Amino acid sequence: MRTVKLDLDHAPYDILIARDLLAQVALILPLLPQPRVAIVTNETVAPLYLQPLQHALAQCGVKVETVILPDGEVYKNWETLNLIFDGLLAARVERKTTLIALGGGVIGDMTGFAAAVYQRGVPFIQIPTTLLAQVDSSVGGKTAINHPLGKNMIGAFYQPRLVLADLATLDTLPPREFSAGMAEVIKYGLIDDLAFFEWLEANIDALMARQTEALAYAVERCCQNKARIVAADEKEQGQRALLNLGHTFGHAIESGLGYGVWLHGEAVAAGMVLAALASRELGQVSDADVARIKALIQRVGLPVVAPVLGNERYLDLMAQDKKVDAGTIKFILLRCLGESYIGELERSTVIAALEAGCA
Amino acid sequence: MRTVKLDLDHAPYDILIARDLLAQVALILPLLPQPRVAIVTNETVAPLYLQPLQHALAQCGVKVETVILPDGEVYKNWETLNLIFDGLLAARVERKTTLIALGGGVIGDMTGFAAAVYQRGVPFIQIPTTLLAQVDSSVGGKTAINHPLGKNMIGAFYQPRLVLADLATLDTLPPREFSAGMAEVIKYGLIDDLAFFEWLEANIDALMARQTEALAYAVERCCQNKARIVAADEKEQGQRALLNLGHTFGHAIESGLGYGVWLHGEAVAAGMVLAALASRELGQVSDADVARIKALIQRVGLPVVAPVLGNERYLDLMAQDKKVDAGTIKFILLRCLGESYIGELERSTVIAALEAGCA
Ligand SMILES: NC(=O)c1ccc[n+]([C@@H]2O[C@H](COP(=O)([O-])OP(=O)(O)OC[C@H]3O[C@@H](n4cnc5c(N)ncnc54)[C@H](O)[C@@H]3O)[C@@H](O)[C@H]2O)c1
Ligand SMILES: NC(=O)c1ccc[n+]([C@@H]2O[C@H](COP(=O)([O-])OP(=O)(O)OC[C@H]3O[C@@H](n4cnc5c(N)ncnc54)[C@H](O)[C@@H]3O)[C@@H](O)[C@H]2O)c1
Ligand SMILES: [Zn+2]
Ligand SMILES: [Zn+2]
Repeated sequence: MRTVKLDLDHAPYDILIARDLLAQVALILPLLPQPRVAIVTNETVAPLYLQPLQHALAQCGVKVETVILPDGEVYKNWETLNLIFDGLLAARVERKTTLIALGGGVIGDMTGFAAAVYQRGVPFIQIPTTLLAQVDSSVGGKTAINHPLGKNMIGAFYQPRLVLADLATLDTLPPREFSAGMAEVIKYGLIDDLAFFEWLEANIDALMARQTEALAYAVERCCQNKARIVAADEKEQGQRALLNLGHTFGHAIESGLGYGVWLHGEAVAAGMVLAALASRELGQVSDADVARIKALIQRVGLPVVAPVLGNERYLDLMAQDKKVDAGTIKFILLRCLGESYIGELERSTVIAALEAGCA
Repeated sequence: MRTVKLDLDHAPYDILIARDLLAQVALILPLLPQPRVAIVTNETVAPLYLQPLQHALAQCGVKVETVILPDGEVYKNWETLNLIFDGLLAARVERKTTLIALGGGVIGDMTGFAAAVYQRGVPFIQIPTTLLAQVDSSVGGKTAINHPLGKNMIGAFYQPRLVLADLATLDTLPPREFSAGMAEVIKYGLIDDLAFFEWLEANIDALMARQTEALAYAVERCCQNKARIVAADEKEQGQRALLNLGHTFGHAIESGLGYGVWLHGEAVAAGMVLAALASRELGQVSDADVARIKALIQRVGLPVVAPVLGNERYLDLMAQDKKVDAGTIKFILLRCLGESYIGELERSTVIAALEAGCA
């Protein structure tokens, strides 16, 4: 088992990574303030993984409530969140009951937000079951739901007490979802870890074949990178925004096409290419660098070309993003391959990147 | 101007108390990270106080957005909260824009919660315009909305950067609302301030006549008491629960009758009598003590007799309250007049109190 520590002053916690962690409830039990949990999952994940977890907990005398939500990013909204509250209140779940998120990033973000605000805060554990959730969304305490006018607009910073990344759950992940998760994996290489980017170039076939050792290494390395960035800037006052590489463009793609048409990771993949193209416009990366980035993204089966939404629509959608400060849009740009920074772009540079990157 | 400091490690702030503070925006300006605010108020308060505040801010170059909500406890729910988000997002309000709550406890609780979760947290200022909000709800950072299955079930601990208690706004407060606020004022005397309880007995006529000096003293004293309790236990792990004196019974009354039938303060008044009666059952306060409490409550025009809901219904409603731990209901009880503690009650004691206190 690999362990990554997230060192936050007020609430440090462990991210545990290995196959078959799900039913090892000995890892969970010491963290429960009360022998009672509420597992939140969805209609896809429940038939696969709810029973073993629920059974193992019940065997140890833990009272288990379950809330099973519909599956999909389109449900990451207030109405679905309310289904969690309805379930918790109907079961009279109390302040010391721990919420467990069992699923991908949508379940993790919604359950985390529910835990943050149910009775003003209850304990919370993440069991991420997608690659994206294991390397990114389950780590770092960002929780949220979408609003019709913007993605992740309503949320909280709320840390879990434990993240259990069971690599065996990835066996059942559809290829398109696995690829989407790879977008965030590649992201860490581009943010500030050139060695990892090069490791990915060399080991991409093993990873796409979901070989355990390659997966374990990649998930651990991503979590180490994320943990370091989050520990330095939990509330995103500064450097944490680097984690949004590709996301300003990506969110515009997701919301411009309508949530759920492109997967988050697909939009981020195309968004990273746009960010690279903008950085090339600024003369900071070469055509060859852009080509390497595109090549790796293509090998994991993700789009390198963004959809045509119209330049004005892109600019408008990005102006609604959270990373806006006094009307200026913040972009994460590449200073060189494997090094990123938070910057601003002239309108003309954004348009040039869009012209080069959309089709 | 009287100043009460709330000394929280991470976010200390001032509560300023005086007449005519509303338009003194020099008190607000230094706290704004950006010359932009969004004032949230309601249809009753807006015609009275929005214009002077808005005008004074605009005069100083602050860009002002306004969100005007329907008025009433029945609107303290997700739908209305969403109207705030709709307004903020339509105006593209950013992370550094400060939300200002202008109104009573309902506006304060909802705006505070909106500030806690809009884009995962934006700055927030309270301008409470009811007595209840000035002595209680605006101070201490509890924010929430109601859920059909329970009051204040969804919320956050989120501190304002400033509380401006403008006593002049109380001039227009309907008598019934003023009386309701007095329930919380009396509560502080009972929690742990016998001297204040006796001051209230002596000065109740001046207070009910809303004489400025009496009001200023009472608001300051209540805020001092609340600030001390909150500073010692921000997240309600222990002693902060004392502030719920009368509230376990009170919430059952509010929710049993349907929110909005009895005012919060009215329910709390009858709830405090029930708590006193339960304490008398335990032999901790005398009949004479109970009579003094009832007399003071009656002189401010509040109910001393709780509605008949049926004992089982009371017990059931109270079991849904947040102050439930492993199935045991917590009550705030009187050890003697002017001293309270967190305790539990036998079923039979609750029923005896209900029998003595409902009609
Ligand atoms: N909080 C953060 O820091 C953060 C970071 C990145 C992304 N996110 C959010 O994460 C979300 C995307 O997460 P996601 O990609 O995990 O999407 P997802 O949660 O929708 O999961 C993808 C699909 O895979 C299914 N699934 C999950 N686990 C499975 C398994 N083991 N086997 C088979 N199917 C399985 C899901 O039911 C779903 O249909 C977005 O809403 C995004 O905003 C949050
Ligand atoms: N957060 C906390 O710690 C805390 C503590 C106590 C109560 N509360 C909450 O506070 C709420 C009750 O607050 P409230 O009693 O202020 O109710 P309220 O906000 O509904 O205000 C009462 C009425 O007075 C009107 N009003 C407000 N200011 C006025 C003014 N200056 N002149 C004329 N009319 C005015 C309002 O529009 C409303 O109709 C409840 O929802 C309760 O849960 C919260
Ligand atoms: Zn992402
Ligand atoms: Zn109250």
